[in-house]
Amino acid sequence: MGALDECHYNVELENGVNLGNCVEPETMVIEDAVRVLLQGLGEDINREGLRKTPLRVAKALREGTKGYNQNVKDIVSGALFPEAGLESKVGHAGGAGGLVIVRDLDFFSYCESCLLPFQVKCHVGYIPSGQRVVGLSKLSRVADVFAKRLQDPNRLADEICASLQQSIRPTGVAVVLQCSHIHFPDFRSAIFDPNHQRWVKTSFKSGSGVFDDEKADSWTDFFSLLKFRGLNAEFATSGGLVCKSWEMGSSDPAMLGAVSSIICSLGEDPSRIELLETPARFLNWLMNFKNCKLDMKLNGFVRNGNFGSSVEEQHICSEVNLPFWSQCEHHLLPFHGVVHIGYYGSNRVINPVGKSLLQSLVHFYGFKLQVQERLTRQIAESVSSVLGEDVMVVVEANHTCMISRGIEKFGSSTATIAVLGRFSTDPTARAKFLQVIPEMS
Amino acid sequence: MGALDECHYNVELENGVNLGNCVEPETMVIEDAVRVLLQGLGEDINREGLRKTPLRVAKALREGTKGYNQNVKDIVSGALFPEAGLESKVGHAGGAGGLVIVRDLDFFSYCESCLLPFQVKCHVGYIPSGQRVVGLSKLSRVADVFAKRLQDPNRLADEICASLQQSIRPTGVAVVLQCSHIHFPDFRSAIFDPNHQRWVKTSFKSGSGVFDDEKADSWTDFFSLLKFRGLNAEFATSGGLVCKSWEMGSSDPAMLGAVSSIICSLGEDPSRIELLETPARFLNWLMNFKNCKLDMKLNGFVRNGNFGSSVEEQHICSEVNLPFWSQCEHHLLPFHGVVHIGYYGSNRVINPVGKSLLQSLVHFYGFKLQVQERLTRQIAESVSSVLGEDVMVVVEANHTCMISRGIEKFGSSTATIAVLGRFSTDPTARAKFLQVIPEMS
Repeated sequence: MGALDECHYNVELENGVNLGNCVEPETMVIEDAVRVLLQGLGEDINREGLRKTPLRVAKALREGTKGYNQNVKDIVSGALFPEAGLESKVGHAGGAGGLVIVRDLDFFSYCESCLLPFQVKCHVGYIPSGQRVVGLSKLSRVADVFAKRLQDPNRLADEICASLQQSIRPTGVAVVLQCSHIHFPDFRSAIFDPNHQRWVKTSFKSGSGVFDDEKADSWTDFFSLLKFRGLNAEFATSGGLVCKSWEMGSSDPAMLGAVSSIICSLGEDPSRIELLETPARFLNWLMNFKNCKLDMKLNGFVRNGNFGSSVEEQHICSEVNLPFWSQCEHHLLPFHGVVHIGYYGSNRVINPVGKSLLQSLVHFYGFKLQVQERLTRQIAESVSSVLGEDVMVVVEANHTCMISRGIEKFGSSTATIAVLGRFSTDPTARAKFLQVIPEMS
Repeated sequence: MGALDECHYNVELENGVNLGNCVEPETMVIEDAVRVLLQGLGEDINREGLRKTPLRVAKALREGTKGYNQNVKDIVSGALFPEAGLESKVGHAGGAGGLVIVRDLDFFSYCESCLLPFQVKCHVGYIPSGQRVVGLSKLSRVADVFAKRLQDPNRLADEICASLQQSIRPTGVAVVLQCSHIHFPDFRSAIFDPNHQRWVKTSFKSGSGVFDDEKADSWTDFFSLLKFRGLNAEFATSGGLVCKSWEMGSSDPAMLGAVSSIICSLGEDPSRIELLETPARFLNWLMNFKNCKLDMKLNGFVRNGNFGSSVEEQHICSEVNLPFWSQCEHHLLPFHGVVHIGYYGSNRVINPVGKSLLQSLVHFYGFKLQVQERLTRQIAESVSSVLGEDVMVVVEANHTCMISRGIEKFGSSTATIAVLGRFSTDPTARAKFLQVIPEMS
């Protein structure tokens, strides 16, 4: 792929930074590796939706690990301000001496155990000394330098803490991270465990100076002012995130090598002990989304068995909040959410077999490389072969690609609608179904 | 100020983009204008905390208006993907034909009426046609191009809508903006109106194609899936944001000229009708923070009058949630929040005179160029001259400089603590006071 072709040029502009006309060799190595992965998933790498995926993935990974090239000293120097205080006396009143806390900073980081992004809500506190304070935004910028690397959350907390201690030289620094990591939804757990957690939240902390002692009074002050006031926050001391407990399957050597070469291109050493199993864990996740040629031969099965009734008796029925997982084919990043299905049926409540069939349909179309628009349409078409031609499907999802890659829209979510039959011509029917959809949690 | 000095160099690195060794002429014009404003506020422009403020303000303004140099076509082209649908039939099922909504995108924009940033929660929907969909993140990137200009929210909604309609050519586009703009807290309203709103929220919408008609069924579908489900959202059709109703005072011609030259340097024409009164409105806000040499001579006044009691009778008393406004001296951007004051006193409830005195103290130290750490210390020191030497002050604030300037940490907040006397040595006293502080709303 030529360095000057249109595709490279566009994506550089798209990220707001023109890196010149030359694509870096690391980016091209990642592109090649992503092509190996796509082929391993049984995909056609020349299909329109996938053609630029290797470049998109490479850019996203390099953007998400740009912290390797950033220097905390450059950030903090020039942002230390003299601020008088009462430091020499017993009390201290703000400025030098008083606790300063910046709360609820949203970041994401790539997990070094599985290469999937995890979300971080970060709280940083420090007690100034030497009669100087640091610009508040610098606490956020410094945390971001370490978040934008392949990370383990314990190390992330320690690195933010140590680098602030070293660059500001305060009386103490406290860092609390609340991390949300994807819980591995293999077919089994996703399909058979209705209470399967989608995210596992774990908290981590690190302290230096007067926060060195876990039982220090300064920690009590700090916790009192975090948003989980009154909660007994429990902190993990080891073990890291949930992916460390994932079971490993066997993986294709070429794909394992491709993931290793990606890790290399980010400037990491794949033989570092924490990274040894990363390619296998990542592939274990990725292979859930292998292109499956299996046709679902459902036509008429449930319709005749359970849902048939005369037109006169029919009214709008719904199944809401069917969970799904999928993988965005543009960025090879997870998206997940819920599917709501509306249809015309008789008065009866849908039976458990019918409900689990709908859930299976949702998983069938979720577990592949997808875009949300297509997922919605495919579920609608497939459901219509089971439940009749009048079908409405709403998919609500959170996209990992909307919180990473420089977009960082942490609260955003996406809804897509597909309508068939009566739902496409009757706004009242649509409104009636939309009303029963609960707010997304 | 030389273009190569350390100060310029650092700030460029700090924003993550090195613009080379040469500061652009527009940036230097803004720096000069900011120096005029600082002097008009009665400040010493060589004071350490203010020395780099002109450059910081210039960089922030240029970052916050960089949308003038961005092109929607560059963003969308290359991100349109073919996606089959059932468009030719009556129904449409996802992909081409189905409604796609991206919700809760957080932005900020500079208000063209007053130059203060306002927050925008943006919801974008479109109905694809021509069997192609656009990458979801592009809806966010396109909205950002128009948010990062001097804006009026009605025009912002229209521009996002029109540019998506033109670049994607879908069946229709819908845009809803929920904007939060600072309510003008002059001394009078802040001090005499205890229910003074700090932010005014106004909603705006724009539609094209099938959304052109306000009563179209597509709007009903769209609203059903926004997070304010069930709410009757009211939309402003004209009048813009709250600042248009601000009263104008008389302003110093040199300062008016300085604000005009800033507007010029951002690439706008200050004689455009919507911008004619902007310098006066901005100065009306800014002059609330004029450096006031007035000493507060409170020592002993209230202490002897209302709060005195023997040490044995004293226990921890508190006044919480005293609102304040201030202006960050590093970025000339507003920050606002609440102050909580703890002290040792007798059993009596603080009387209304005492409470309003504390509120006046808070406003006195808020209405000037500040940093939160100093504000906290100054309030603590000042309160201790009134209520005795055992004082604890907590300030909780939202900083506009944390949502703008490329930081964009929309949910973050900052807490600072100052402790004097018994509060500095007795962790139990601190914990007892911190417990009564309600969670920040």
